[in-house]
Amino acid sequence: MARNTQVAADPDAPPVTRMLARLVATHPSRGWSDAVEREAVRSWLNWVGCAVGAARHESVHAALAAVQVLQPAPQATLLGRSERVDIASAALVNGISSHTFDFDDTHLKTIIHPAGPVASALLALAERTGASGRTLLDALVLGIDVACRVGNVIYPEHYDRGWHITGSTGMLGAAAGCARLLGLDEQRTTMALGIAASQPVGLREQFGTMSKPLHPGAAARAGLMAALMAREGFTASPRALEAPRGLLQVVSPRCRWNEASDELGERFEISFNTYKPFACGIVIHPAIDACVQLRAQGIDPQRVQRIELKVHPLVLELTGKKEPADGLAAKFSVYHGCAAGLVFGRAGEAEFADEVVRRDDVVALRRKVQAVVDEAIAEESADVTAVLSDGRLVHVFVEHAVGSLRKPMSDDALDAKFHALADPVLGAVRAAALREACRGVASAPALAPLAALAVPAG
Amino acid sequence: MARNTQVAADPDAPPVTRMLARLVATHPSRGWSDAVEREAVRSWLNWVGCAVGAARHESVHAALAAVQVLQPAPQATLLGRSERVDIASAALVNGISSHTFDFDDTHLKTIIHPAGPVASALLALAERTGASGRTLLDALVLGIDVACRVGNVIYPEHYDRGWHITGSTGMLGAAAGCARLLGLDEQRTTMALGIAASQPVGLREQFGTMSKPLHPGAAARAGLMAALMAREGFTASPRALEAPRGLLQVVSPRCRWNEASDELGERFEISFNTYKPFACGIVIHPAIDACVQLRAQGIDPQRVQRIELKVHPLVLELTGKKEPADGLAAKFSVYHGCAAGLVFGRAGEAEFADEVVRRDDVVALRRKVQAVVDEAIAEESADVTAVLSDGRLVHVFVEHAVGSLRKPMSDDALDAKFHALADPVLGAVRAAALREACRGVASAPALAPLAALAVPAG
Repeated sequence: MARNTQVAADPDAPPVTRMLARLVATHPSRGWSDAVEREAVRSWLNWVGCAVGAARHESVHAALAAVQVLQPAPQATLLGRSERVDIASAALVNGISSHTFDFDDTHLKTIIHPAGPVASALLALAERTGASGRTLLDALVLGIDVACRVGNVIYPEHYDRGWHITGSTGMLGAAAGCARLLGLDEQRTTMALGIAASQPVGLREQFGTMSKPLHPGAAARAGLMAALMAREGFTASPRALEAPRGLLQVVSPRCRWNEASDELGERFEISFNTYKPFACGIVIHPAIDACVQLRAQGIDPQRVQRIELKVHPLVLELTGKKEPADGLAAKFSVYHGCAAGLVFGRAGEAEFADEVVRRDDVVALRRKVQAVVDEAIAEESADVTAVLSDGRLVHVFVEHAVGSLRKPMSDDALDAKFHALADPVLGAVRAAALREACRGVASAPALAPLAALAVPAG
Repeated sequence: MARNTQVAADPDAPPVTRMLARLVATHPSRGWSDAVEREAVRSWLNWVGCAVGAARHESVHAALAAVQVLQPAPQATLLGRSERVDIASAALVNGISSHTFDFDDTHLKTIIHPAGPVASALLALAERTGASGRTLLDALVLGIDVACRVGNVIYPEHYDRGWHITGSTGMLGAAAGCARLLGLDEQRTTMALGIAASQPVGLREQFGTMSKPLHPGAAARAGLMAALMAREGFTASPRALEAPRGLLQVVSPRCRWNEASDELGERFEISFNTYKPFACGIVIHPAIDACVQLRAQGIDPQRVQRIELKVHPLVLELTGKKEPADGLAAKFSVYHGCAAGLVFGRAGEAEFADEVVRRDDVVALRRKVQAVVDEAIAEESADVTAVLSDGRLVHVFVEHAVGSLRKPMSDDALDAKFHALADPVLGAVRAAALREACRGVASAPALAPLAALAVPAG
């Protein structure tokens, strides 16, 4: 109070907090196209699969052990686990597990992974309140719209500054979704967004540590609590997002305000959500895609003499590791990715296991991969030629890698990804039942039965 | 991963995270001067009084109602209340109440209010673990040292950008304190600081709403959980504070790294902690101090014809409200502050109650206050002359207001402040017992008895 400092800021920003709150509080249920609805279900399915798949990871063990110190009430399900915890802790832990494999969804315009923070908060809350699947999907679409629109306002400057944008917009998506699910009015939804605005989560410096998946988890928890507090009359600035000392101007040197409002309620950002077919960085997906196609054409890895890759420069810059020692390192090796694609026809989390990375046939094959940079190759593309022992050449050019917006994963491919993640944890039968429940979430009277299927039997 | 963006950043920052963790993990118990120890006890007493005093505020009601949705285990005390909640929720709610009156401590170099986030986390954890008062005080000194040293690194640029620095450094102080209290080693303490680094809390846009006191509360909760997670093996970057995309370079355009390390373990920032004698912005404290002195000299408010004030320019810019309508507005009125000082000899939270602000004698007196700006008057000073009905003039010049570093509140004044806050909630007898317990915290075998005294009887 005794200082009178000034910031170079835009005092005339439009009322972004209120506009987004109004959308969340008043938009009709299922007020969007079939395409939007379909993407919501796919986002939901993919999120559940990723969370179940990583449920036994040490990051989840460690987070849960800390949560158990609180002696939480058994209110909500942890996907893929038998323990139950309070809804805020469930939001945290499910948010962590769903991002642990880095295999969740991506809003490519902002590289936000939007389901993690939003769905993690919503499942916990819906399970507890008895909300319907319809209500949950509505909240998911609107919550993701809030997070990604805010992302559009501040990307890429905000990300470039060092924020992990999934967590630093995710608490807003979670707060918005939970406010919708609780049926808060526009004013209380404004407060929920305001309370959440004070709690951005996530630094890029954490990449490579457990604190990366912490970000969507902590954002989920913060957003859920913000909505609960707003319901009880807790207050925040109604301009917490856009004011000169509000979140967006504080965390980004540039704000495109129109991104918050353009086609609001008509265009939904969840339409631009994508899913990773391969459990590694997107930059090597085109090359893996090509190798999967080679295998589908009947190429036998045993008869491969050489694989010639032409790739975008970023591929070797970011994933040029020739002899990865373990699974984590293999995620940064285009050589391993290609070998996995050829040997297994896929490159899910299982294909990045330490023992797979060290298998003799896999090691032998990846040494036959020769990669060169070609400035003419786009980031979404790869040019791959298999040279066989009999001298034959087989060529595949991938223009748009599978999983990109131009060539989205098919429903079948998403189902296969789901099973690869969930079967080892739940068994194939239970996983299939869970998959069906996820596909049918829009008509579910409540979420508890779906959540129960995500718990290992016995 | 597909982008390769660069930040203009300092890659050669010293290992701040590890250095601070080493201090926290290895500094000897009571390894400081008597003056540091005395300030720790005073900080503790002042924090308890502020939290008890605001325990019935609507912000506390609202936050607690949200927390109750989680059905928390009754692990820890809420100061001034009879409900018990889990330790993370207690850290949150006590952090909120302690900052609700804006009457807590101030580290003047950074305007951090350091006890809120640190003590709120520590009391909850200590109560649960059975830690001794000595252990708690050690953790308080070291936790506050971490938060304030980090503040010194980034102040004022970080604050000027719009961060509420109490919450955006407080989670580090809380994590450090809790790591110390849990006895974590240097490596796990580094992880605790790293996990906390991803969760800064607080925007200045929230000033004037309940989300301002949320900031120390949410920081306390985040720091406590970070320490619990680190104990269980959860990981973060060991350079989470200082890396180019670590917290400090992300949230501040300038970092003075030496502030983290200069005289580390020899100078303790808690030495520079101060306590507000008056429940309003520091800028009007000199004028109130002068009016309290006038009353102490026997000036009868009934016989005052006019009060002539000469003040620093900021006083009228920030607190120039002539006719405040209620208690909140009165905190921005130097006129009311002076009237309260003359009528009551103090200006605590009670003297800013709505009914006091509207009392006839108080209104009449504040209309007799005439304030002029004098460029020659320093921010810590005020020049006040009372013109009495008999024509007599009584002059007081305050060079350093009470509560400043140059003229700290006496122990007696702190005790009186404590009672003004705690008596209405606990009754005078119980408040006195609590005050004694706080003064003797260093030798308390455990914290539960102290916490029990902070609960209203019956």
